[in-house]
Amino acid sequence: MSRVINFSAGPAALPLEVLEQAKAELPDWQGSGMSVMEISHRSKAFIAVAEQAEADLRELLEIPDDYAVMFLQGGATLQFALLPMNLSQPGEPLDYLITGSWSKKAAKEAGVVRETSIVADGTDSGYTDVPSQDSWNLNPEAAYFHYTPNETIGGVEIHEPPDVGTVPLVADMSSTILSRPIEVTRFGAIYAGAQKNIGPAGLTLVIMRRDLLDRVPADVPTIMRYKSHADGGSMLNTPPTFAWYLAGLVFQWLKARGGVAAMEEQNRSKAELLYGAIDASDFYTNPVAVPYRSWMNVPFTLVKPELDGDFLAQAEKAGLTNLKGHRSVGGMRASIYNAMPVAGVRALVDFMAEFENNNA
Amino acid sequence: MSRVINFSAGPAALPLEVLEQAKAELPDWQGSGMSVMEISHRSKAFIAVAEQAEADLRELLEIPDDYAVMFLQGGATLQFALLPMNLSQPGEPLDYLITGSWSKKAAKEAGVVRETSIVADGTDSGYTDVPSQDSWNLNPEAAYFHYTPNETIGGVEIHEPPDVGTVPLVADMSSTILSRPIEVTRFGAIYAGAQKNIGPAGLTLVIMRRDLLDRVPADVPTIMRYKSHADGGSMLNTPPTFAWYLAGLVFQWLKARGGVAAMEEQNRSKAELLYGAIDASDFYTNPVAVPYRSWMNVPFTLVKPELDGDFLAQAEKAGLTNLKGHRSVGGMRASIYNAMPVAGVRALVDFMAEFENNNA
Repeated sequence: MSRVINFSAGPAALPLEVLEQAKAELPDWQGSGMSVMEISHRSKAFIAVAEQAEADLRELLEIPDDYAVMFLQGGATLQFALLPMNLSQPGEPLDYLITGSWSKKAAKEAGVVRETSIVADGTDSGYTDVPSQDSWNLNPEAAYFHYTPNETIGGVEIHEPPDVGTVPLVADMSSTILSRPIEVTRFGAIYAGAQKNIGPAGLTLVIMRRDLLDRVPADVPTIMRYKSHADGGSMLNTPPTFAWYLAGLVFQWLKARGGVAAMEEQNRSKAELLYGAIDASDFYTNPVAVPYRSWMNVPFTLVKPELDGDFLAQAEKAGLTNLKGHRSVGGMRASIYNAMPVAGVRALVDFMAEFENNNA
Repeated sequence: MSRVINFSAGPAALPLEVLEQAKAELPDWQGSGMSVMEISHRSKAFIAVAEQAEADLRELLEIPDDYAVMFLQGGATLQFALLPMNLSQPGEPLDYLITGSWSKKAAKEAGVVRETSIVADGTDSGYTDVPSQDSWNLNPEAAYFHYTPNETIGGVEIHEPPDVGTVPLVADMSSTILSRPIEVTRFGAIYAGAQKNIGPAGLTLVIMRRDLLDRVPADVPTIMRYKSHADGGSMLNTPPTFAWYLAGLVFQWLKARGGVAAMEEQNRSKAELLYGAIDASDFYTNPVAVPYRSWMNVPFTLVKPELDGDFLAQAEKAGLTNLKGHRSVGGMRASIYNAMPVAGVRALVDFMAEFENNNA
């Protein structure tokens, strides 16, 4: 079968060029007679891979030197617990903004570790809107303010970082990182599971302002301290070397295509194309308030939900896969990360029009 | 360059057949038009991969149903902290046996979480011997007894699990798992980083008797609870899917070659061949007490250490790579895990004889 157009929310499609290069470098990487996953993480050869990946990421996101970049494990979900453990002392207040399933999970897990305060919760809108900032109950003494710029399930995206004064902004960017330029200095910490816009599952990026690394209380185990990971170049223990290598290939792929500025342009076009098609039709609906529509995850429903099964089956036949919506939202979801070309979204829009014609 | 004979201690050589299959299945896995790393961990297709891997591992190690098998992240090092957090209450004593660098690290990290007791420490022998069991200061009330059956750096292996009465035995088997049959029911918990005998770095196996899962105190975050991972089929959050898939290929490779009984035979032969050559020569030395010599990691030194550089350079030229010893031990180390064929060890022994002839 030829390559399909893969709308998976994550683990998501990777650039074909990256997969082809990884294939070509198996089992003999750079003429070494070994694959890159068969060498020590402390070998010169792998350290060069690791350092290049970090340098490329720093260049792509313009990450200044006073921010540490860590290539870790455990997914964003492990960070849900590690962030309060590292960035606050017992008794210090933490602010969490809830705009969907993931920010809710992050707040719940932090709540096991510390006292958390929910500054606002979008549940009244069914997580299709973001409570306006003047309703937020911000604590200027909070150790940090946590939010989820892009909610993968609900498709709700906060496109500009909020102003929370001097409180460090901590953001789970799992499903939006590298989709456009960001002003890193606006943030205290940015973290992201790799499996959407970075690489394969099993790698987690953490970008943290270095002064925050020193906040960690004395009773946190070494392997759970960001400070130890940063000091050890993310080689405190064996890192997921193959995933790190693949992330490096993705970063090079991004650079060769004009970096995150070019991605922004492309992602904006893709979003406009898809939301435009949905809004122009009475057959498809997206429930999210227009200013908060995600560029990356586009949930949509049919006015005739009894046709969901037909839609998915026919889409699959047309080579458009993994469009089933999350069970908590229903309908369809098209995840259109960096690796999705405009042509992929165009194919979806064309299919949607045809399906509507045949079934309206 | 053709494939080399790779003695890396980890990340270590994988079976060539496994790498070739992974290559063949990139970027189109089983005719899906996607690679296996581009699909949801919750998709039927991936769950079949995950379940097959678990079933094959259970078959290989004869793991009974009252043991949970978890495919996690974080390496053995993360488990150093998670084990005391999960298996003991504050104030409960823990017993640790120290036979080298890794058991020492495990005890140190556990010491951040709980009060630990060192039952014996092989430091007097420079970690070349194991203190005899009648000198161990065992606590029958300990929440568990922890040891490291194979010390990757020192090359010290405890070939039979010790008898510690009813105290659950917890073993870091990172560099020995699957090298031979084990009696799983002797253990409370077995854990292992994948990057030696299982698959690529970034995957960590934990095998735990189910009754121990319930010990976890209430204040442990969800993502740090083995109980949650076991209940969630290791899909509490996105697992390292590609590493899990590769581990599954390794398990099938092992089954096709007669399983761990066949590995035992081969590993015994490899060890006999290499230690035999070292002992028969006055030019090479292995410092480890004979009953505790590792089957997996064989450190050896030259009587003329000034020739170390020549040895390594000429070995490299002969296609024998990654033989440099750990800096704390010096000299050479040959790691000869399952993926190393007898022929690979024979090539090393032949090279060693030739080098000795030219330099003795």
